[in-house]
Amino acid sequence: MFKPTIEFKNGVVRLIDQTQLPEKLVYIECGDIHKLWKAVKRLSVRGAPALGMAAAYGVLLGTKTFRGKDPRAFKRHIHKVCDYLATSRPTAVNLFYGLEVMKQTIELNEGLPVSALIKKLFIKAEELLREDQTVCRAMGRHGAGIISQGGTYLTVCNAGALATVDYGTALGVFYAAKAQKKSFTVYSCETRPLLQGARLTCWELKRAKIPVTLICDNMAATLFQQKKINAVFTGADRIAANGDAANKIGTYNLAVLAKYHKIPFYVVAPLSTFDMKIKSGKEIPIEERSPDEVTHIRGKIVIAPKGINVYNPAFDVTPNNLITGIVTEKGILQKPFRSNMKKYF
Amino acid sequence: MFKPTIEFKNGVVRLIDQTQLPEKLVYIECGDIHKLWKAVKRLSVRGAPALGMAAAYGVLLGTKTFRGKDPRAFKRHIHKVCDYLATSRPTAVNLFYGLEVMKQTIELNEGLPVSALIKKLFIKAEELLREDQTVCRAMGRHGAGIISQGGTYLTVCNAGALATVDYGTALGVFYAAKAQKKSFTVYSCETRPLLQGARLTCWELKRAKIPVTLICDNMAATLFQQKKINAVFTGADRIAANGDAANKIGTYNLAVLAKYHKIPFYVVAPLSTFDMKIKSGKEIPIEERSPDEVTHIRGKIVIAPKGINVYNPAFDVTPNNLITGIVTEKGILQKPFRSNMKKYF
Repeated sequence: MFKPTIEFKNGVVRLIDQTQLPEKLVYIECGDIHKLWKAVKRLSVRGAPALGMAAAYGVLLGTKTFRGKDPRAFKRHIHKVCDYLATSRPTAVNLFYGLEVMKQTIELNEGLPVSALIKKLFIKAEELLREDQTVCRAMGRHGAGIISQGGTYLTVCNAGALATVDYGTALGVFYAAKAQKKSFTVYSCETRPLLQGARLTCWELKRAKIPVTLICDNMAATLFQQKKINAVFTGADRIAANGDAANKIGTYNLAVLAKYHKIPFYVVAPLSTFDMKIKSGKEIPIEERSPDEVTHIRGKIVIAPKGINVYNPAFDVTPNNLITGIVTEKGILQKPFRSNMKKYF
Repeated sequence: MFKPTIEFKNGVVRLIDQTQLPEKLVYIECGDIHKLWKAVKRLSVRGAPALGMAAAYGVLLGTKTFRGKDPRAFKRHIHKVCDYLATSRPTAVNLFYGLEVMKQTIELNEGLPVSALIKKLFIKAEELLREDQTVCRAMGRHGAGIISQGGTYLTVCNAGALATVDYGTALGVFYAAKAQKKSFTVYSCETRPLLQGARLTCWELKRAKIPVTLICDNMAATLFQQKKINAVFTGADRIAANGDAANKIGTYNLAVLAKYHKIPFYVVAPLSTFDMKIKSGKEIPIEERSPDEVTHIRGKIVIAPKGINVYNPAFDVTPNNLITGIVTEKGILQKPFRSNMKKYF
């Protein structure tokens, strides 16, 4: 079931082209950082933890173009590679985390020759991969306790195997509950404009034989009103030191609805998604993407008059007061988030 | 600017095929009730007041197939026509209102010969047409008082000229405010699954030179959070005697968000949309439509895995406590709705 979303093999980053799912399961091979940058930009690979891994692998690709034996020149080269990769997408902190870890690896191994530094980078990337796998499974175990036999849950976007190396954050909770033989149902918000819920989450859950029902984003309120939902689970792209969480556009909408209907709202995210340098969600940069994503479906069908104005923020920020708990690899973070978080860092 | 959405000419109902907008402005001609039934079912004509008009015109079409001179047989025939047309769509009460008015016309003219009854039906349909035009303009005038110079408003689905004979309910408020030389901005929720906001409202407002920005339905919460919206205006398909209002799916979502962000939420609907026979919104039947509407965009592009479960309610019910006021042709109905409503009926 869980094949890696992204891997590094024979000097090439191989990743599932998620823009082609669910019709086709196609892999892209990125042999250089420019091809990888484009794959990140156009969302062939997406999801905060997967972006962290893409960043680390991007650095490995970057080592291939270094010529010479001067460790200091090598360090400068890697910093340039990191600066470039950092421009691909602004919101998910894991991307910057991945780059930071690779830069630190060079820092920590100062004095070693270039060939040894490259080896260290490869080892570190492998560590990040294992860490993502371990961490997702740990979050799944902690979160699975919230899933009740016969319950019904709602999720948005794709915080699954496709958003990580191979298991998922929010969907990892469902996978872990399923492994514990619980039976339950999931509603997946389609997640306009790019329909990651319809395309990716439905595809993943169907493959995992977890009953899933697709709704349009504007139907969630009706489900809540009908008391059909036991809890909401979402991923996160960046969490501030006070627990405010940026995630796919529409998440804040669900959080307000959940609050109004008194339904628990959980964010599932590894500690690498926490950005302790920022105090609140107000400091999280929100990526605005092309109007075409809204006016064109899958780049083909046009659904609005030509030249119409469009507002297309890719993320929103859910304030901490709307979040019941944050499921991390170390356990479920409870309120007050700020002080409880300190124990984890 | 305001050409009729639907008209009866030379024994044929001529209507804009709204499924083809905004790409093409195409008219369909329905020469019999079956063709009209299908046009209603597949939403070539939609919007509560327009459905009322379609129903009345459907009865006119129905008169064409009556043979004989017995007024009682004619009455039975028309009742059969009405029963058939009533099966086209269940939620909008205006459709039933249109049929009811036509049946009453026969009742009130008992004793007349068939040819005279037919004449009365044609006159009544013409009256309904004028009534819709007058009523929309009256609602517009009342609602325009809420629009502030430089304000920003949000609407969902299409409650415009295309949803009525030629002016609109919620959008009529904007047309009236524009006629008063106010300048303001409108955000249009795209309104999944059938995208009436993206396709029809954007098309209408652009033609009327009212600045409009398209958003996906899940982005409204972010606009509210950013304090960008002064008020929400929606139409309604049926309003219960307590003020609960059924409208396009996603309306209840916006009403909860508006309440949470302390933003006024107005329903704009003629008195023909009120169903005083039902006490609350719980009694309003909600149409569930085909999964294909969600999984296929404009009947073409597929956006989800094959065979996925889908929940596709076409409407939702907004409880009266979330509604600031209901703009009618007689003025803006304020709380408590139940007692204030009595003055209007």
